[in-house]
Amino acid sequence: MRALDIIVKKRNGEELTTEEIDFLVRGYVDGSVPDYQMSAWLMAVFFQGMTGRETGDLTRRMIASGDTLDLSGIEGPFVDKHSTGGVGDKVSLILAPLAASFGIKVPMMSGRSLGHTGGTLDKLEAIPGYTIARDIGDFRRILNETGFAMTGQSEKIVPADRLLYALRDVTGTVESVPLITASILSKKFAEGADALVFDVKCGSGAFMKNRKDAEALSQSLIATGRSLGRKIICVLTRMDEPLGRMVGNFLEAEESALCLRGDTEGREDLMDVTYRLTAWMLVAGGVCRGADEAEALCRQKLAAGGPYNLFLKNIEAQGGDAAAFEKAIGKKRAPVRRALTSTASGYIAGIDAYKTGMAAVYLGAGRSKTSDPVLPDVGIIFHKKKGGKVSQGEEICSVFAQTGDAADMALRQLREALIVTGSPPQPGTMLIREYSAL
Amino acid sequence: MRALDIIVKKRNGEELTTEEIDFLVRGYVDGSVPDYQMSAWLMAVFFQGMTGRETGDLTRRMIASGDTLDLSGIEGPFVDKHSTGGVGDKVSLILAPLAASFGIKVPMMSGRSLGHTGGTLDKLEAIPGYTIARDIGDFRRILNETGFAMTGQSEKIVPADRLLYALRDVTGTVESVPLITASILSKKFAEGADALVFDVKCGSGAFMKNRKDAEALSQSLIATGRSLGRKIICVLTRMDEPLGRMVGNFLEAEESALCLRGDTEGREDLMDVTYRLTAWMLVAGGVCRGADEAEALCRQKLAAGGPYNLFLKNIEAQGGDAAAFEKAIGKKRAPVRRALTSTASGYIAGIDAYKTGMAAVYLGAGRSKTSDPVLPDVGIIFHKKKGGKVSQGEEICSVFAQTGDAADMALRQLREALIVTGSPPQPGTMLIREYSAL
Repeated sequence: MRALDIIVKKRNGEELTTEEIDFLVRGYVDGSVPDYQMSAWLMAVFFQGMTGRETGDLTRRMIASGDTLDLSGIEGPFVDKHSTGGVGDKVSLILAPLAASFGIKVPMMSGRSLGHTGGTLDKLEAIPGYTIARDIGDFRRILNETGFAMTGQSEKIVPADRLLYALRDVTGTVESVPLITASILSKKFAEGADALVFDVKCGSGAFMKNRKDAEALSQSLIATGRSLGRKIICVLTRMDEPLGRMVGNFLEAEESALCLRGDTEGREDLMDVTYRLTAWMLVAGGVCRGADEAEALCRQKLAAGGPYNLFLKNIEAQGGDAAAFEKAIGKKRAPVRRALTSTASGYIAGIDAYKTGMAAVYLGAGRSKTSDPVLPDVGIIFHKKKGGKVSQGEEICSVFAQTGDAADMALRQLREALIVTGSPPQPGTMLIREYSAL
Repeated sequence: MRALDIIVKKRNGEELTTEEIDFLVRGYVDGSVPDYQMSAWLMAVFFQGMTGRETGDLTRRMIASGDTLDLSGIEGPFVDKHSTGGVGDKVSLILAPLAASFGIKVPMMSGRSLGHTGGTLDKLEAIPGYTIARDIGDFRRILNETGFAMTGQSEKIVPADRLLYALRDVTGTVESVPLITASILSKKFAEGADALVFDVKCGSGAFMKNRKDAEALSQSLIATGRSLGRKIICVLTRMDEPLGRMVGNFLEAEESALCLRGDTEGREDLMDVTYRLTAWMLVAGGVCRGADEAEALCRQKLAAGGPYNLFLKNIEAQGGDAAAFEKAIGKKRAPVRRALTSTASGYIAGIDAYKTGMAAVYLGAGRSKTSDPVLPDVGIIFHKKKGGKVSQGEEICSVFAQTGDAADMALRQLREALIVTGSPPQPGTMLIREYSAL
């Protein structure tokens, strides 16, 4: 078998065999297939795509390149949620204790903020003392104790993905649906989940800007899941406006706590998405038969307060100080506060999620590159959201910054993110479409 | 400027600027653009193509990567011919002295045989003592003395092409029309030609198997030539059957001599192609206004004997022994002679050029890989060609081999190459189409 023949076969639009995909990935990891052949193959995949079967084989081979989390001895079902990334997206922090309160085990391997999108780990680490699980023993203990556990990606899990992603990043082959699919699924299944619920975001603040691309990714995830014999659900949700009313690391941890306490006013978009994704986790985990029924149960469960207590319990289990966290709520803010006021009277027609995300980067809440540090206490609080009525001079949002310059840069971005019109915008739903392979 | 952005731009089907192409090629040659980015770009070009302007810029930048032959002080016009490669294609050996006899200077930088196609240099070196020009001084002297000079590609000429070709060869990006165009044109223009006539071969024995591909290459050559402000003519010719009656290194040198002496019977296909290509060289060089008129002049000139004398003069100028060569004609044959006889009576409907070329490789006339040696005196002589009437048991061709095994392998291939039918095939013309940018 030769890498060249495999490249040419894919270039010509033919389907590769399991053995060919194994040969290529294994060879790339062990160094016998050089970078320049792999990048030519990746570009051929960009143009010719891959079937669900091929993507499944790629995923399987990538998982086999490293360790997998051993969850044996812990009672399942193990169901995780993955978001393709958005702005103000603190869904995981609310959904994990909510799902866990139904007996679902949620082993979460999350990422950090990059570019305009936030990262779950950065938000959690803004909680005093909170430490992501450092080894498998820690992770298993926390998962057993609180029903969900939070960790980052280990170097030993799916090394093939790290190698391939680094190559894709410099060869213009990131935006390939089957490659994205294999990258996501390999990491998620290596962490031990039996089933996965995907929040495929679509809109200005998402990786997928339009519905067509989001649907293509969903279909690829479903087809690959089927090929792997795993349960997968995709929920397409809007990401045109930041989710909820707060953007920033501590601010998002705070908003999650507020939601878990039932303070959801003006955060209906966030909760609609959270309830729906959690509902599908219950269905995938065999707790409920239908998503609508499950969603109603989730709303009841949250209102009863159990999930918030589980959230506090997890903070303690992960080394954090739940009391200090609760005390910091409403207070932990960066020193420079500035307000954005409306220049006209009317209705908020939109708050662009991408520009809001970039404003957060300017404030220091996010990263331009992976080595940048993040600030815990900077961010944005929206007093109004899409559809809200505003008068000229009224405050629309506040920014909390470390310096006046950073505040000014963020305000300039937010000014551009905001659209005020004379008549109210059409109300829309957060859910676009759902796909399931159970 | 970043290589990644250039890859993505091409991947998205956009036209690259001159500066972007310069950056990429220059960076690849100096090592600042790594292999893996170049191969991703090459694959993107494979799918998205390049305009004549982009291909012209690529060609220009490739030429600038190395030395060019300095022909200053020698009187022009300098016109060369390039063939995309075929079987039995000894056109250059006849065309060069014929064009030179009209005062055209022909600076020929030729290749060696590879796979089923022969190489001009291997054929010339089968002539006793013949040595390809080793340096520019030698080349200039021979060009001045005999009107044409023969050399191989120097390491110093277009190093970018060698680097790029080696990468394309292992990344499945050889078969890209603009990349082929730039590779051919950069080498040819670096050797100092003012104008180029291309023999774009089309058929089973050619690189381009079908007319659509041959036309695409011709159009790319013409468009790129226009962008470079150079004269280019493309003549599409058939390559379904070997050209002429002899295949092999010395045999093809011998057949060239026979043709130059006027012994062209049964070699009309070879001479039709040779006359037409030479005619266009005269037009490109300003000797004649039209190709038909030029072709008639070529036929007269060859009959008058001058070109044959020029051929002998060139042999001497290149260190060969013209008298020994003439004495070897009809005699220099490998020891094992075998004949292929017809198993039926009828007409020869075709002799597959590709299979004939592979038979020659089995005999040792050609190479499977660049490091293989070639045998000078092995080969095939056809007694009949397409359209010829044959009786059962009649000899169709003879093979000359070093060993009985090689002869058997070649005969098996030739048996497959041959099609005999009950009725004569439709007569066809060798010329398919012509394109000119003068």
